[in-house]
Amino acid sequence: MTLIRPHASDQLRPLMINADKLTEYRQYAEKLPKITLTSRENGDLIMLGLGGFTPLYGFMTYQDWLNVCQNMRLTNGVFWPIPITVSVSNTIAKTLHTGDDVALINPKGKTVAILHINSIYQPDKLLEAICVYGTDDLTHPGVAGLMAQFDVNLGGQVDVLDDGGFKAHFGQYALTPKECRDLFSLRGWKKIAAFQTRNPMHRSHEYLVKTVLELFDGVLIHSLFGHLKPGDLPADIRLKAINTLIEHYFVANTVVHSGYPLDMRYAGPKEALLHALFRQNYGCTHLIVGRDHAGVGDFYSPFAAQAIFDMLAPGDLDIRPIKIDWTFYCEKCHSMASAKTCPHDKQYHQLISGTEVRRRLKAKEALPSTFSRPEVVAELYKWIE
Amino acid sequence: MTLIRPHASDQLRPLMINADKLTEYRQYAEKLPKITLTSRENGDLIMLGLGGFTPLYGFMTYQDWLNVCQNMRLTNGVFWPIPITVSVSNTIAKTLHTGDDVALINPKGKTVAILHINSIYQPDKLLEAICVYGTDDLTHPGVAGLMAQFDVNLGGQVDVLDDGGFKAHFGQYALTPKECRDLFSLRGWKKIAAFQTRNPMHRSHEYLVKTVLELFDGVLIHSLFGHLKPGDLPADIRLKAINTLIEHYFVANTVVHSGYPLDMRYAGPKEALLHALFRQNYGCTHLIVGRDHAGVGDFYSPFAAQAIFDMLAPGDLDIRPIKIDWTFYCEKCHSMASAKTCPHDKQYHQLISGTEVRRRLKAKEALPSTFSRPEVVAELYKWIE
Repeated sequence: MTLIRPHASDQLRPLMINADKLTEYRQYAEKLPKITLTSRENGDLIMLGLGGFTPLYGFMTYQDWLNVCQNMRLTNGVFWPIPITVSVSNTIAKTLHTGDDVALINPKGKTVAILHINSIYQPDKLLEAICVYGTDDLTHPGVAGLMAQFDVNLGGQVDVLDDGGFKAHFGQYALTPKECRDLFSLRGWKKIAAFQTRNPMHRSHEYLVKTVLELFDGVLIHSLFGHLKPGDLPADIRLKAINTLIEHYFVANTVVHSGYPLDMRYAGPKEALLHALFRQNYGCTHLIVGRDHAGVGDFYSPFAAQAIFDMLAPGDLDIRPIKIDWTFYCEKCHSMASAKTCPHDKQYHQLISGTEVRRRLKAKEALPSTFSRPEVVAELYKWIE
Repeated sequence: MTLIRPHASDQLRPLMINADKLTEYRQYAEKLPKITLTSRENGDLIMLGLGGFTPLYGFMTYQDWLNVCQNMRLTNGVFWPIPITVSVSNTIAKTLHTGDDVALINPKGKTVAILHINSIYQPDKLLEAICVYGTDDLTHPGVAGLMAQFDVNLGGQVDVLDDGGFKAHFGQYALTPKECRDLFSLRGWKKIAAFQTRNPMHRSHEYLVKTVLELFDGVLIHSLFGHLKPGDLPADIRLKAINTLIEHYFVANTVVHSGYPLDMRYAGPKEALLHALFRQNYGCTHLIVGRDHAGVGDFYSPFAAQAIFDMLAPGDLDIRPIKIDWTFYCEKCHSMASAKTCPHDKQYHQLISGTEVRRRLKAKEALPSTFSRPEVVAELYKWIE
């Protein structure tokens, strides 16, 4: 085993119950009180099931929640940047006690886990908002999501019974951390960067990945398959658009294309840390961190998500960031470049906003081939039809 | 001091005598028997003077020479890939004894060093050729140079009195290892790659350097200023052409452009190791190693110079190679790429041989802007005039 070790653990800790015990667990779960998960909570649960949140054993207790908010650490000292929690209403909370087991139900109504409650607490959401998002502004989608949570959190170990169709839906593009690691080992990769994406890949993203590919063994193109902001492209469309790019413009077996079940939190720097942490569990040694990684609006300074990695203590995370500036096509360079490699004035840089890209796609207006590969644009047009 | 430490030493060991003792040393040298250096030996001597060959104290003794040929190690165990030697004729050798001092004279007739002889030996040149060059073929320019040496080597410490005009001629482009390190520290660079070149820089070289720049703090563009094969471009022309490229296409202060005084040996893999070793002395953490680095003709397999780094023992060298394949413009990618990042057929790759480039320059025929920047080509045309 020459791959990077999982976060703070010698082995992955997927919380999915083995197939041979599943019937027994399911029967037990059906007798339990039912708690319905939000989309965000459900994504977190699937990730716990897959082992992507190693070494967590479940949803955070009060002490872990508080420590993570204030110090980015679990009570056992292990680094962790963002609370992983599940909430219930006051009414339901009053019927529950530590020591109780409850069934967790996904948004589609399916029983997906058993939670062994060992902590029931009212989190200070304002504290969490400020600590995690750096703001309590309700126009921030992550803050809005947090404030919309119920008032009481349940902490405790979980046994995951079902991935809610994640694997069935995404198939070969829903590699587990173990499957990713096995694939990396098979290919003999050691130095592996993860490229986080929640968009189709245009030339600037292709440039980022290829730049890293020149120096690394391989890149994991890792798409968020969970919930996004309204107006963002659905996962299935992004999947096809990225596959089209890979098919036409990448050398076979230099990248792995897969996805993960989380929703976006838009927590900027702290989410960049979480993105790095679980990519370590997927076997990656590096995470590409661009400008305003996991940001939204103007809530974070463009380089905050890069700078936060420099504030970690030694040993907090083994995975390292690859910090790259905005990338763009420069008409003077006649090539893709970044502010680090192109000396020319901004007037020569082709920058098209996401809003403008969506407008042109809807209007079936062309996108320059220096911005997006024609094959990819054709794929995106199909979605509009 | 956060820079990489010099090779096998806590400090640089420039063998240049301090200015305040120079008159005394010069007077002493004038009384000594005179040994005239070849161009290759003179380049090595200047490098010893600058500290680029730290931790060597002079030219190699028999035991060091033998150990380096056979095991790539000095007798004290320190890694060293290629013998650093000076030779004299049998006739002169007979007049010399260990313990003698001799004056070393550069090819222009200037006294440049004092050698304190502690080893006089007849090297087995065939052994050296096979060990260092992997061949005894006299059409190999490095082997030809070796065979043309005199039959007896002199080993011993040297006091360097003069760089033979190296600094005066190349000025700010003749940074010493210490000056390079000071500049890196001033700029706050830590992760620094050296780009070895003996040619003007075309688009493929620009692509290599910029690819690394995206991920590193900075790049040292390090030109060989010593002797090359007939037909290669003189150092002054290359210097101007590279400066033109930097001026028009690089962000200020992202690269350092300088040169070093060695001749090419064309020893392929072993010279790649020497190139890495002295770049570590210049403060670089990485050396860009392309295909057939320091090779000539078909003497080395294209990846031999990359593979040899994997055969080193831990601790042999602190500096690490950055292995990159051929780079070229691809008409399907509409960009620079390498075999690692471009999946298209070779018919779409623009590859122009050095011979063809020289032919076109002489005939004032155009070079495509996808091959070479127009500003650089204009500079090269001037040389032809």
